[in-house]
Amino acid sequence: MFASHFSVQNIPFGIASIRGLPHRSTATRIKDTVIFLDELANHGLLSSLPEEALRALSQPVLNDFAALPKTIHQQTRASLQNLFKEPLTFLPAGCTAALEDVTMHLPILSRDFTDFSCSKDHVLNAGEAIQKKRYLPPGFLHFPIGYSGRTSSIIMSETPVVRPKGQFRDAQGNVKYGPTEQLDYELELACIVSKPTKLSESVASKDADDHIFGLILLNDWSARDIQGLEMLPLGPLNGKSFATSISPWIITLDALQASAIKGQPRELQVASYLDDPNPINSYDIRLQANLITGTGSTTICKTNLNTMYWSFRDMIVQQTSNGCSINTGDILATGTISGSTDDSHGCLLELTKGGRDSFTVNGGKRVYLEDGDVLQISALASDGVGFGECIAKVLPALI
Amino acid sequence: MFASHFSVQNIPFGIASIRGLPHRSTATRIKDTVIFLDELANHGLLSSLPEEALRALSQPVLNDFAALPKTIHQQTRASLQNLFKEPLTFLPAGCTAALEDVTMHLPILSRDFTDFSCSKDHVLNAGEAIQKKRYLPPGFLHFPIGYSGRTSSIIMSETPVVRPKGQFRDAQGNVKYGPTEQLDYELELACIVSKPTKLSESVASKDADDHIFGLILLNDWSARDIQGLEMLPLGPLNGKSFATSISPWIITLDALQASAIKGQPRELQVASYLDDPNPINSYDIRLQANLITGTGSTTICKTNLNTMYWSFRDMIVQQTSNGCSINTGDILATGTISGSTDDSHGCLLELTKGGRDSFTVNGGKRVYLEDGDVLQISALASDGVGFGECIAKVLPALI
Repeated sequence: MFASHFSVQNIPFGIASIRGLPHRSTATRIKDTVIFLDELANHGLLSSLPEEALRALSQPVLNDFAALPKTIHQQTRASLQNLFKEPLTFLPAGCTAALEDVTMHLPILSRDFTDFSCSKDHVLNAGEAIQKKRYLPPGFLHFPIGYSGRTSSIIMSETPVVRPKGQFRDAQGNVKYGPTEQLDYELELACIVSKPTKLSESVASKDADDHIFGLILLNDWSARDIQGLEMLPLGPLNGKSFATSISPWIITLDALQASAIKGQPRELQVASYLDDPNPINSYDIRLQANLITGTGSTTICKTNLNTMYWSFRDMIVQQTSNGCSINTGDILATGTISGSTDDSHGCLLELTKGGRDSFTVNGGKRVYLEDGDVLQISALASDGVGFGECIAKVLPALI
Repeated sequence: MFASHFSVQNIPFGIASIRGLPHRSTATRIKDTVIFLDELANHGLLSSLPEEALRALSQPVLNDFAALPKTIHQQTRASLQNLFKEPLTFLPAGCTAALEDVTMHLPILSRDFTDFSCSKDHVLNAGEAIQKKRYLPPGFLHFPIGYSGRTSSIIMSETPVVRPKGQFRDAQGNVKYGPTEQLDYELELACIVSKPTKLSESVASKDADDHIFGLILLNDWSARDIQGLEMLPLGPLNGKSFATSISPWIITLDALQASAIKGQPRELQVASYLDDPNPINSYDIRLQANLITGTGSTTICKTNLNTMYWSFRDMIVQQTSNGCSINTGDILATGTISGSTDDSHGCLLELTKGGRDSFTVNGGKRVYLEDGDVLQISALASDGVGFGECIAKVLPALI
């Protein structure tokens, strides 16, 4: 599945191992074939690349490679595209493996993760779902608001998610402790930081893309009831920190150039530091969420990154505007990506209006996620350039 | 200064280098002498310790050492105490240095940092300062609430803090962009995680101390105006992420045993997972904040850890109660430590009632911190067992 996302126009970067073997390698993917970059280098097939690129591609995480200048990423991409003009069967034995024989690992070691809230529709819908009124938080039109997330619970796609326990109010308003009764997903994209900054440095909009290695899919799993009791006034903690799933393949901004488009217009004059001189600051990336139950798969959301009010550049700029430093491997996510239509809600909080409505899946009803449900998000940018999927099954809470 | 905090009863752990030399060593401190633990090992003076302890003590950060079982920390402490029965001058050349000839470094690499809100007085005072009403957030008596902080901007004591820029409302209520006009400090203690947990594991109260390597001082610098505009509904981000100062010496729970005391009583029955079978769950640690200006030093807060409603054990238990994993080196902080009296406010937001009142320093007035101000926090547990200081100077915003 999703083989069509990985044409020679894509050239994503990830970390893979042959299933059952411990050796982790930097890797890319063409259709359903995984190509191990350290093996390509061992066979002299990347000899046009500078020494530092080869050293970085021999590591078991992509941090060293991501930290290299963008020109080296581009050179690596071009070398690989050139190599893949021939059928992959020409590559020496051991350089490739079928996707099904491979385990994917976290591509990057992240020290910090910020989840922004870039979707105006999501914010308005969430307000309606929780407080029955549509409103924007006071900062929303001034800058991308967000919260610091937890990196210890970032997990690879396909890792199951155990239903978390916590404290929340029951229907009578009493605080109870137990497995969440409102397990939700959030369909998001995130960027991975390449070039780091020092403390007290700020990044200008015009330079922001230089700090982005590429994009991934991200599912910010949320326990709405736990989140509801804890959020005032410090924001989410245990309602989110039990799991955040990410997709295995980092899609570079170079691969996304064919999808680059103008972002949403500003409704309010922004502060000078957020002025982006380049109006092409978003991407036409079609996103989808599918809920897979015992009886089949139902598409529960179709949306697009181009509905976002704030861009990835804005996130980099805002994060560093106070002098906060960013490090290679940091994750900055969009928050739930929702469109303005009823079929483009990127989480169940919106789709069910805070749990008041149910929706139909094959032969059944859902309000929030049930044990055994599988949630799959996917994204396609242009022909042959997609993100594959970010998927996980919900397991029952531990006794 | 603070030599009296570091008797042979203390034996803190830190990372030090001789000023101007790159080599970083694990270290401890007796009075104003820093002792390099890798040099002690090189001279065979720690030969009673197991091989894994010696390996860990030869690293340039304390993560490997912190991850070892508590029995090894205790054995190391005892070995050092035994060694220091003789005057330090008996130690071979190169094993010691005067504190003034040493640079201290971040003792631990932290991937995650949670700042909890454990002080009932702080929460009530902050509510009064901001919203002119004293109230507890809905979750406060049920569990320690908190937010995920930023690890990229954690800095060593003595590193200056550059006044951050950001967006906030001016006196007329208009959103402006510029250097914060409400720079504040927060007097806190934090624990450093030793033994890690796996995702979906939870820690019981009775086992929580096993996951704590020791405590440090922490100053959660805050730009109250930036924080004020951004916090709704996702909590603090840029108002906090520009700097968090920590003290260099990790004080182990063993060194704090003489100060162990009963914690505050529960005002509400807590959920079973937060029931602590051991009522001795706090420490009698006297804390102080001094504001040092051109004209002298003024004590602006005197408080005690024993006023906290939630304990370090509660924080470990709450953080992992939803299955969130913790890693060695993680930082879990108390939030502002304030007492019930007017001289025990652990931040200026409280002391100035949200900036409405000023207070007197030597020959001058302050509302929030001004450029050139030096903020020093310190803590003393028992005779000869203290934390030293966590100190930093405020530098002007960058143009």
